Amino acid sequence: MLIFRSSRNGLCNLHRTYWLRPMAWSIHPPASLAWTSFYSHGTWNSTYSRRHRLLVAAGAGLGIGTIFAYGDYRRRAAEMEPSESTPGSPFPVFTRQEVSRHHTEANRVWVTYGSDVFDVTDFLDLHPGGKSKILLAAGGALEPFWALYAMHNQEHVLEILRGYKVGELSPEEPPQPTPGDPYAEDPPRHPALKVNTLKPFNAEPPSELIAENYLTPNQLFFKRNHLPVPVVDPAAYRLCVQNHNGRMLSLSLQDLKRKFSKHEVIATLQCAGNRRAEMNALKNTNRLGWDIGAISTACWGGVRLRDVLIHAGYKPSDEGHVCFEGLDRDPSGTVYGASIPFKKAISVEGDVLLAYEMNGEELPRDHGFPLRVVVPGVVGARHVKWLAQITVGPEESKSHWQRRDYKGFGPSVTWDTVDFSKAPAIQEMPVQSAITEPSPNTSVTPGELTVKGYAWSGGGQSIIRVDVSLDGGKTWHEAELLGEKQLPGQAWAWKLWQLKTSVPPGTKELNIICKTVDTNYNEQGDSVAPIWNILGVLNNAWHRVRVHVDEE
Amino acid sequence: MLIFRSSRNGLCNLHRTYWLRPMAWSIHPPASLAWTSFYSHGTWNSTYSRRHRLLVAAGAGLGIGTIFAYGDYRRRAAEMEPSESTPGSPFPVFTRQEVSRHHTEANRVWVTYGSDVFDVTDFLDLHPGGKSKILLAAGGALEPFWALYAMHNQEHVLEILRGYKVGELSPEEPPQPTPGDPYAEDPPRHPALKVNTLKPFNAEPPSELIAENYLTPNQLFFKRNHLPVPVVDPAAYRLCVQNHNGRMLSLSLQDLKRKFSKHEVIATLQCAGNRRAEMNALKNTNRLGWDIGAISTACWGGVRLRDVLIHAGYKPSDEGHVCFEGLDRDPSGTVYGASIPFKKAISVEGDVLLAYEMNGEELPRDHGFPLRVVVPGVVGARHVKWLAQITVGPEESKSHWQRRDYKGFGPSVTWDTVDFSKAPAIQEMPVQSAITEPSPNTSVTPGELTVKGYAWSGGGQSIIRVDVSLDGGKTWHEAELLGEKQLPGQAWAWKLWQLKTSVPPGTKELNIICKTVDTNYNEQGDSVAPIWNILGVLNNAWHRVRVHVDEE
Repeated sequence: MLIFRSSRNGLCNLHRTYWLRPMAWSIHPPASLAWTSFYSHGTWNSTYSRRHRLLVAAGAGLGIGTIFAYGDYRRRAAEMEPSESTPGSPFPVFTRQEVSRHHTEANRVWVTYGSDVFDVTDFLDLHPGGKSKILLAAGGALEPFWALYAMHNQEHVLEILRGYKVGELSPEEPPQPTPGDPYAEDPPRHPALKVNTLKPFNAEPPSELIAENYLTPNQLFFKRNHLPVPVVDPAAYRLCVQNHNGRMLSLSLQDLKRKFSKHEVIATLQCAGNRRAEMNALKNTNRLGWDIGAISTACWGGVRLRDVLIHAGYKPSDEGHVCFEGLDRDPSGTVYGASIPFKKAISVEGDVLLAYEMNGEELPRDHGFPLRVVVPGVVGARHVKWLAQITVGPEESKSHWQRRDYKGFGPSVTWDTVDFSKAPAIQEMPVQSAITEPSPNTSVTPGELTVKGYAWSGGGQSIIRVDVSLDGGKTWHEAELLGEKQLPGQAWAWKLWQLKTSVPPGTKELNIICKTVDTNYNEQGDSVAPIWNILGVLNNAWHRVRVHVDEE
Repeated sequence: MLIFRSSRNGLCNLHRTYWLRPMAWSIHPPASLAWTSFYSHGTWNSTYSRRHRLLVAAGAGLGIGTIFAYGDYRRRAAEMEPSESTPGSPFPVFTRQEVSRHHTEANRVWVTYGSDVFDVTDFLDLHPGGKSKILLAAGGALEPFWALYAMHNQEHVLEILRGYKVGELSPEEPPQPTPGDPYAEDPPRHPALKVNTLKPFNAEPPSELIAENYLTPNQLFFKRNHLPVPVVDPAAYRLCVQNHNGRMLSLSLQDLKRKFSKHEVIATLQCAGNRRAEMNALKNTNRLGWDIGAISTACWGGVRLRDVLIHAGYKPSDEGHVCFEGLDRDPSGTVYGASIPFKKAISVEGDVLLAYEMNGEELPRDHGFPLRVVVPGVVGARHVKWLAQITVGPEESKSHWQRRDYKGFGPSVTWDTVDFSKAPAIQEMPVQSAITEPSPNTSVTPGELTVKGYAWSGGGQSIIRVDVSLDGGKTWHEAELLGEKQLPGQAWAWKLWQLKTSVPPGTKELNIICKTVDTNYNEQGDSVAPIWNILGVLNNAWHRVRVHVDEE
């Protein structure tokens, strides 16, 4: 039972895997990983040729695995000599733009690897990880996905891929940044992310990938930026902490790492706007239309906020609010800010961190490099990134995002009647769950079906049950829960879940619903309308996914 | 802001009142209590005769007030000379059984006071507290209700009542207890209680009275007994506490009061089966059909369990469960038992008490005299009454009520498939609210309407909003919240609420719904079916009340 342990005792294990598929355990996957388990899933049988089996190996990974080594892959891809890109090559040359048009079966599905272009349309249905997963790369580069699913890193996989080669990429100039663009210095992002807005960058992982990993790979972790990503020199970086006498302490990264012991916490972050798309569909809030992916889980490493506060002279019996300011600022100089109750900040069980690591890596720029707040069990908006300053006072942060956003109102409140002082700032969040597979409006076939998803509750409440219905709520089945066991009241991370069921022949449609229950026996409500609100936050209605059942 | 204060600083104020009606502040209500406020409610106007005004005074109290002095009233009633029960009286004589048949308007509504019988049918519609309140006494004695609403304690009220006299009571033998009945020693109870079972005694206050008092009068507080009420000699009473070395400490009531400081906590208790009637209506669980009244609030006075545990050698860093046993036992010798996590028991903020007082009075026998556990924010079943023994161990209580009852299951679980080890014992409870007025299937008139109710959440979560719909959930209105402000995370007591609205002429029916939201923004779900369970516990679906609208 790993919940919170110091770095002396061991690091978070990034290689946790929970599904029955074979897993990639390292950048060099052990050859012994049981191929037979693929066959035991009934998708493939031993009469297939060796070539087909290798194709399975190549494709299966898109639905598998945990390790993330995108940078390493990019380097290797750059080093790879394209097999036939020599002068006098028989292959035509395409621009990336031309390749990008081939992202549907109707138009043929192309992908690139290094400087080669491949038409993988005929491979789609051979992909044991599901067509939907390989289609994530359609019209673009394979590298980011193969980096995610490390088992592709084998010579015979590349050999098979070459059989689908249809062309080569023309040398292109990298796109030039717009002069004066405040977002020009934003970091590169993973192409699998579903982008809500580019500037500021707000994006989420595709549904099918959400429940593939208990710890979300950093590059797939949902990004929720309010402002441009600041450029921070870690050597010059200083955290300002107001001490008990009102003076400012200045702490370098080295100070933080030397003066305080390191702690790790596995915690799920969720944006208050997760699943806003369903609210927008009912009545548009004109705010970011998050699907079900504005939620992710990581193992955060850093120092306890409690330790820093005590170092600054505060006592556990003090009261008030701990206010945070980020380095991200708009052109007028306004910085992002938020606060949490002092009681949560100082509590040993509260597990609030100033994190400099995420899943064992240096905190990525999109997630607050070099230092961010992590407030387990609490809405994402309080986990201030690029942390510049900590103050303690009798009042909540005066920031817009604390006082005039991230609050919950009743469905009858309008922009004409809203009184922001009447609702408390969202801190701990209500119970939540969603279906990540199958995707809405896709097709399944009669026979075996695995429904997957996630479930989480705020305030450290454990998830005790997930109920799944296939018939619109008439009957319910209990799903299998997967994930770390955490301490009561400190269950900061989600549970992944799956229901293995079968679709009877003759079924035309499935109306899949999930709902979950936490330790306090709070449940999700049936529908969106009664909790719809002008800010489009806190949508935790039952998640519903309709899928067609194909005749076989 | 009174949440928890020692007796040195002051007692809980039993006379808190929250509605606009005039209140009875003491057993001798001040004459100045504004009659005009009745008239301002538009029910009565100044053209009424003095007699009518006095009738208002007599009747209004049934919807009013806080003071409870039933014992005092019984004494006074016994002393009162019936005005005309002299030999040769012109009035006929009736038995109590005959009177009890007159409990509906169709059959005329009779009540008794002392040994006189009155037909108050013609007074029903003159009752500003509402016909429903005066009907609570129909067919029975007025004394218990007048004790509840002390403003009746005026000579001119009696004078008016005498005008309705129709007979006298015949002298009757008190009912003899059944020999060998284990319930023979159960205490007397208030006749207003709606009885679910007599043996063991399980009863709740009528809906219309629930939200009349922020602190529920002890006699109206819901009673949930699993076994006969034990007869305890307070002088001989000893609490056994297992100390840290496994030995038993024996503490008398005097020891507890002398050795530990007194604390008071205002906390709401709710039975897990509250609102089971709605589940039974869907599919009978064959368990107690509680309406919405298995919830009440009191100011509890006693010693902190934490202090007793520390006295017994336990440390805050200890772990496990604190197990309680009661003195109530079945014929086989099995005693009632339950447990709570040690963490809750030892926590300063947990506010767990060993209570010997309830609303400033000695703990009543039905509520655990001489000592009970009060576990704020937690299901009633853990508040063990007639406390005999406290032990601490690594496991939960082995009692039936901890292991094989008071747990939540999904709607698909049956008695054939249930696995009690799979669900956690209910401790903190989910968010809850209900409509106490108007009552279902009654009638209201077009014009002003006040909808009333309660809202509460477990685990010390504050109630932040109550939404009320009059049209079955199409539109929502925010209700006014009433009640003490309590500390965040220690909001142990309910909020009462009211919505003042108006019913447009031409409305045929109201489909009233309430739903509430707590600090974690958890809400109630729409309907009962998806949370129905074989134990019939944890019903916190939206509460729905349909009422007819009369043509005026």
